[in-house]
Amino acid sequence: MSNRGVFIGCDTPYDQAKTVILGVPFDDTTSFRLGTRFAPQAIRIDSIGIETYSPYQDKDLTELSIHDAGDVDCVFGNTKKTLQNVKERVLEVLNDRKRPFVIGGEHFLPVIEAVYAHYPNLCVIQLDAHADLRTDYEGEPLSHATVMYHVQQRLSQDRLYQFGIRSGTKVEFNLAAKQTTMERFHAQTLPEVLKQIGDRPIYLTVDLDVLDPSIFPGTGTPEAGGWDFATLHQVLLQFKGKNLVGSDVVELSPHYDASGVSTAVAVKVIREILML
Amino acid sequence: MSNRGVFIGCDTPYDQAKTVILGVPFDDTTSFRLGTRFAPQAIRIDSIGIETYSPYQDKDLTELSIHDAGDVDCVFGNTKKTLQNVKERVLEVLNDRKRPFVIGGEHFLPVIEAVYAHYPNLCVIQLDAHADLRTDYEGEPLSHATVMYHVQQRLSQDRLYQFGIRSGTKVEFNLAAKQTTMERFHAQTLPEVLKQIGDRPIYLTVDLDVLDPSIFPGTGTPEAGGWDFATLHQVLLQFKGKNLVGSDVVELSPHYDASGVSTAVAVKVIREILML
Amino acid sequence: MSNRGVFIGCDTPYDQAKTVILGVPFDDTTSFRLGTRFAPQAIRIDSIGIETYSPYQDKDLTELSIHDAGDVDCVFGNTKKTLQNVKERVLEVLNDRKRPFVIGGEHFLPVIEAVYAHYPNLCVIQLDAHADLRTDYEGEPLSHATVMYHVQQRLSQDRLYQFGIRSGTKVEFNLAAKQTTMERFHAQTLPEVLKQIGDRPIYLTVDLDVLDPSIFPGTGTPEAGGWDFATLHQVLLQFKGKNLVGSDVVELSPHYDASGVSTAVAVKVIREILML
Amino acid sequence: MSNRGVFIGCDTPYDQAKTVILGVPFDDTTSFRLGTRFAPQAIRIDSIGIETYSPYQDKDLTELSIHDAGDVDCVFGNTKKTLQNVKERVLEVLNDRKRPFVIGGEHFLPVIEAVYAHYPNLCVIQLDAHADLRTDYEGEPLSHATVMYHVQQRLSQDRLYQFGIRSGTKVEFNLAAKQTTMERFHAQTLPEVLKQIGDRPIYLTVDLDVLDPSIFPGTGTPEAGGWDFATLHQVLLQFKGKNLVGSDVVELSPHYDASGVSTAVAVKVIREILML
Amino acid sequence: MSNRGVFIGCDTPYDQAKTVILGVPFDDTTSFRLGTRFAPQAIRIDSIGIETYSPYQDKDLTELSIHDAGDVDCVFGNTKKTLQNVKERVLEVLNDRKRPFVIGGEHFLPVIEAVYAHYPNLCVIQLDAHADLRTDYEGEPLSHATVMYHVQQRLSQDRLYQFGIRSGTKVEFNLAAKQTTMERFHAQTLPEVLKQIGDRPIYLTVDLDVLDPSIFPGTGTPEAGGWDFATLHQVLLQFKGKNLVGSDVVELSPHYDASGVSTAVAVKVIREILML
Amino acid sequence: MSNRGVFIGCDTPYDQAKTVILGVPFDDTTSFRLGTRFAPQAIRIDSIGIETYSPYQDKDLTELSIHDAGDVDCVFGNTKKTLQNVKERVLEVLNDRKRPFVIGGEHFLPVIEAVYAHYPNLCVIQLDAHADLRTDYEGEPLSHATVMYHVQQRLSQDRLYQFGIRSGTKVEFNLAAKQTTMERFHAQTLPEVLKQIGDRPIYLTVDLDVLDPSIFPGTGTPEAGGWDFATLHQVLLQFKGKNLVGSDVVELSPHYDASGVSTAVAVKVIREILML
Repeated sequence: MSNRGVFIGCDTPYDQAKTVILGVPFDDTTSFRLGTRFAPQAIRIDSIGIETYSPYQDKDLTELSIHDAGDVDCVFGNTKKTLQNVKERVLEVLNDRKRPFVIGGEHFLPVIEAVYAHYPNLCVIQLDAHADLRTDYEGEPLSHATVMYHVQQRLSQDRLYQFGIRSGTKVEFNLAAKQTTMERFHAQTLPEVLKQIGDRPIYLTVDLDVLDPSIFPGTGTPEAGGWDFATLHQVLLQFKGKNLVGSDVVELSPHYDASGVSTAVAVKVIREILML
Repeated sequence: MSNRGVFIGCDTPYDQAKTVILGVPFDDTTSFRLGTRFAPQAIRIDSIGIETYSPYQDKDLTELSIHDAGDVDCVFGNTKKTLQNVKERVLEVLNDRKRPFVIGGEHFLPVIEAVYAHYPNLCVIQLDAHADLRTDYEGEPLSHATVMYHVQQRLSQDRLYQFGIRSGTKVEFNLAAKQTTMERFHAQTLPEVLKQIGDRPIYLTVDLDVLDPSIFPGTGTPEAGGWDFATLHQVLLQFKGKNLVGSDVVELSPHYDASGVSTAVAVKVIREILML
Repeated sequence: MSNRGVFIGCDTPYDQAKTVILGVPFDDTTSFRLGTRFAPQAIRIDSIGIETYSPYQDKDLTELSIHDAGDVDCVFGNTKKTLQNVKERVLEVLNDRKRPFVIGGEHFLPVIEAVYAHYPNLCVIQLDAHADLRTDYEGEPLSHATVMYHVQQRLSQDRLYQFGIRSGTKVEFNLAAKQTTMERFHAQTLPEVLKQIGDRPIYLTVDLDVLDPSIFPGTGTPEAGGWDFATLHQVLLQFKGKNLVGSDVVELSPHYDASGVSTAVAVKVIREILML
Repeated sequence: MSNRGVFIGCDTPYDQAKTVILGVPFDDTTSFRLGTRFAPQAIRIDSIGIETYSPYQDKDLTELSIHDAGDVDCVFGNTKKTLQNVKERVLEVLNDRKRPFVIGGEHFLPVIEAVYAHYPNLCVIQLDAHADLRTDYEGEPLSHATVMYHVQQRLSQDRLYQFGIRSGTKVEFNLAAKQTTMERFHAQTLPEVLKQIGDRPIYLTVDLDVLDPSIFPGTGTPEAGGWDFATLHQVLLQFKGKNLVGSDVVELSPHYDASGVSTAVAVKVIREILML
Repeated sequence: MSNRGVFIGCDTPYDQAKTVILGVPFDDTTSFRLGTRFAPQAIRIDSIGIETYSPYQDKDLTELSIHDAGDVDCVFGNTKKTLQNVKERVLEVLNDRKRPFVIGGEHFLPVIEAVYAHYPNLCVIQLDAHADLRTDYEGEPLSHATVMYHVQQRLSQDRLYQFGIRSGTKVEFNLAAKQTTMERFHAQTLPEVLKQIGDRPIYLTVDLDVLDPSIFPGTGTPEAGGWDFATLHQVLLQFKGKNLVGSDVVELSPHYDASGVSTAVAVKVIREILML
Repeated sequence: MSNRGVFIGCDTPYDQAKTVILGVPFDDTTSFRLGTRFAPQAIRIDSIGIETYSPYQDKDLTELSIHDAGDVDCVFGNTKKTLQNVKERVLEVLNDRKRPFVIGGEHFLPVIEAVYAHYPNLCVIQLDAHADLRTDYEGEPLSHATVMYHVQQRLSQDRLYQFGIRSGTKVEFNLAAKQTTMERFHAQTLPEVLKQIGDRPIYLTVDLDVLDPSIFPGTGTPEAGGWDFATLHQVLLQFKGKNLVGSDVVELSPHYDASGVSTAVAVKVIREILML
């Protein structure tokens, strides 16, 4: 029960690390149930419940070079300042030629912005229950429900790919039809998409509510009809050998799942992505 | 966070409504874990967590004409009086040439009785984990464990169809073999049944415990081995275009699922049925 | 189980009402555990668990003229806009010559600002575990930890009275020594303070965490060593016959107390204040 | 961890027992939150968490002659039949010249009826938060909110004594003023009452919600402002040496207190009463 | 709600019983989240939530001859003594020519040791998420993480079969490759294995965490990616007609699943195994 | 939300520290509800919920010299080895002329043993609900129920002082009458005891279940009738200026109190003791 300050097996010194974990305990714009700010801490603590070895990928976290850099400072009630802090920290990591891996917190924009600033030909792949394509949320443009709208505005059309989407307004689905590549409910077209992308840099953003609430109840907006763990896992394994330049895993709200299962699932998803 | 008194998107005035939602916060005869009386209220509140638009059916609740009429008065400790109140309210709705949609509460008889009184050639389709075919429960004939026995007594043999049943006494399964059309565990024969029924009026009663307790833990008698959400959803979509004259969705006990997922599932099931 | 949209017994039409209840489901600046946004809704629902009659004051809510006006619109992630909405709604109520009674949400400034604008000789009495006298919170001036600092800046020295305070930084306690009238831990000097105030207008702000977490666990920052219910109740009864021009009851976070007791306590506190 | 079927230390055979414990898992008329039916079982299981020895009374349960007879059969949905079963079982115990000790379940009438039939000069002492003096509850005369009205109707005026009452309608308090001996909030007049009663037979009914919800959150209708454990305990010790011919302890709803404290409190209250 | 001391339908007297249920409330060596000691009690109580009849196997528990013998004495803090007690009790049952069925508690060695002593040509089939093949756990050889290492040491190579394993250290998987027959993740080779075993005696040990945490959250080390109930059930049915001489079902930790679903699942798994 | 690895304000380097915090996540001998092993971690995390400044003592943790050294290694299932590790670590601290402050975990012996070895004229003061004077627990001499028996065996009679004790067997209370100085229920004789002790070295062991379960539900064996926070706090303040050479705070079981209040109470108790 030692080593609790970092994600299990991720204690490579910063200088030698290839991947850097940043926690972002931020949930200021969440519209329904809150608490994703407690996720980075919960994920690190419960990471001792899994092994560092993955029998799926036959790799061990301790053999990779990962540094867990702790959490970015968040100022509650000041969304702009927090998002700026996040962007700066991610840019720092990128400038040091390391791959950022962000643990949310709610779904946010600045990580993608920073990675996009570094890789202008970036492709973004989003696994999510919600389209997140609103132009504003009750009048507010900066919100976790608008993140992908802003991403889509920045990238050209063939660069935002959405999978597993099963909830949104009519307007969002109409927007997606024109401006993004969206597959509803499933990810059967992913192999083809990955082939199209080729060796261009990829950012992978995993909103854990793409999972079914049976296996992931601890989230702000549970939406029935999602993927089971095996489905998500098979999707993730397809990224092996791809040019993955950054990722985030967001929307765990641990206090809504007293059984701890949601956190355990997040931990395992993170381990498997770190090994890609 | 406005409009909380009604199910999301169901604020058509009564006079203009085609469908009328009635809550029945009743659980007097529940034999194990109670609390379905809290379901109608919980379902209305958490309905703000979903969108009014369904990407599955490409419809929006706000475009339909649905009136949420609130809850029927229930007298705790006086089962007969409560059931009579329910029956009267449903008849009223039917007499006003509207379709009743009832949110339970426990599984109850009077809604079906009222609809049957209105449509003598009614067929009843039950999605449920439990047969509910007991003749009495510990000596008491009026109980949620006997509801379908009474339905079966009123309808002729080819009019009660049971799907997904995975629990009951030996006597109940024997009764079903003779008196109802029951498919154990699954609903593979539903297409054929619907063809047989043709355009006769259908009452659909959904006991949410037909779902697996992984996705629906908040119920009185969790029974492993049920359907996942996608299975239930595909079953429901088969009712599109059928002559559905009334429905109920019962047996959510929200206090047994602190994560709120069971309520979120009930909410989505209700939205999808309302759109059929 | 009817009438659930309003606080029990508070259904006087707006025009005839002397007191107007406003819910403010806002918790954007909360620094630790969130969820006070769910309080107004929970308080209204669970208000059916108490009687409208108080044997302490021998009064009945139904005999008073109270209108529950629902919740003020809150824009998550946009603190300024939300606070402005609140201020405007409270001013409206005051301009209509009614007394505002606000149910939080977190501890906020704009209600007091609005009442102060209306009553320039206002005295503010705060019952609270925390001094809330920080000049900023991690660099952010608008926060529930700075509310009383801003109040104190606006009012002259003998106009902010703090009781029950048992937590704060050294700086806050030093500030209080110079700029406010603070009694640590208890409220034994309240009779004297009320005598000094005389018939000047009083605003009473009750942060429910002034109560001991044994009786009020459902709050963001539980702090041991608070008052029991009887102590708070005796403090409240001293306001009988005083010139109480506005009040708020804040910082219930209902999801942190699954037993529902914290909400039941808030409900009873509100009933007793409404009867003063 | 053996002996779990009975309350700890209460395994004297029926024939040799002076006191007989009966569980009544009944809650059909509960108007708000349910689940007292789970109390007898929970109380027996968690009774292993206390010692059989009381340092307060310097007695040990194993030295007394107590038989735990298990639960009375309850038929859910048939209130009358259940209440009749209870009455018959209690009469049986009384006819065998043993003292009944009933563990509820909700507050019910038939135990007192049975004991009254046996002891026509019976006095009833009620410790409770609620007056329970309604003539009916939403039209239903048999309800846990009307129990004491029925008791009062049967006994003459100086025979029902109510202590700790802190909730009720105006009508109930008016009725109490005329027809019962009620002390609001406290039990300071109990010594005097006990002196008046002298050696007449006493029935003691303890509704555990007389306790403050801080120490007893697991109940259907939590009502702030109750007694702490020490206060209740001192009240109970005054019954030492009195002619106590029967008792019940009711209204624990264990599922509403996941911490198990409410059950632990009930267990200790029962041990102390059994030793009187 | 009677008969609560034993698993539902398992009240055949010991002398006439063919199968004997023993509870082992033991969890001393659990490394992460504890509480499997509460499982035997919880399983017996909640067994009333299912029927004694299985529509899957068309059998009824009341027609089989099963005796529930209660729990083995466990001495907390003295692992060796407890394990010895368990071994002795199981040997007693075997010597009386009955089949032992053990309800854990954590995964433990002595039941298998006892059965192996009785049946030297025993084959052990393990359904589990974890390999449990460590040689020691933080220096301690007796631990639930080492159980199968000790089993493997005692049996020759072709006698320990592991299915569903999805977690372990690299060393454990290497050991399995050499010393046991392990199928990762699935149980597709089970039919073949059962054919190889033929009519040799089989011991079946079911660590319930082989199930996915969506359906079985109440366990010490939830590990995503497990079986759903139907998969486990189909695996179990393959043992019909085999020479099953003993079984255990372990690692339910009921307090980690307040919804009660995990216990309900364990209850159903046990019923189905008892009927094999 | 930084600095989470240590108790708030306790980051003085070891070399400069006067007091050293050691966590002992050990609960192997707990007889009823487990989980005190999670306490040190929970206490550190939630310590950010309080201020480093105490208005009671007008001191600030950051001005004292305290080092939080993390947790001692515990081997689950090997009680002896764990207890030896603890003893060695405490001796190390003492040999470095620092004061040990231990956060449990369950009530254990080796800390007191180590401090006693260092200070042969040690007096031990125990605040506790339970006497812990059993000679063995179900045959096992090393148990948290026997700790004080072993302490009493080592120290001479006038050196073990017990306060607040409200539970134990008759045998334990008899032993206390002869061999220890015990005050039942209260601590009114503490001032006198402290005068007798004078400037001899004192070890203070605080079993948090001395508190009433209303304010401290998160513990293994909740026992009604304990102290409120103010009472404990006044007892603690009496140790100001005394020769306190070591302390422990034990028996928080955080998972049994989902509201987090028990942990918040433990955090505040620890802050106040650290400032003595």
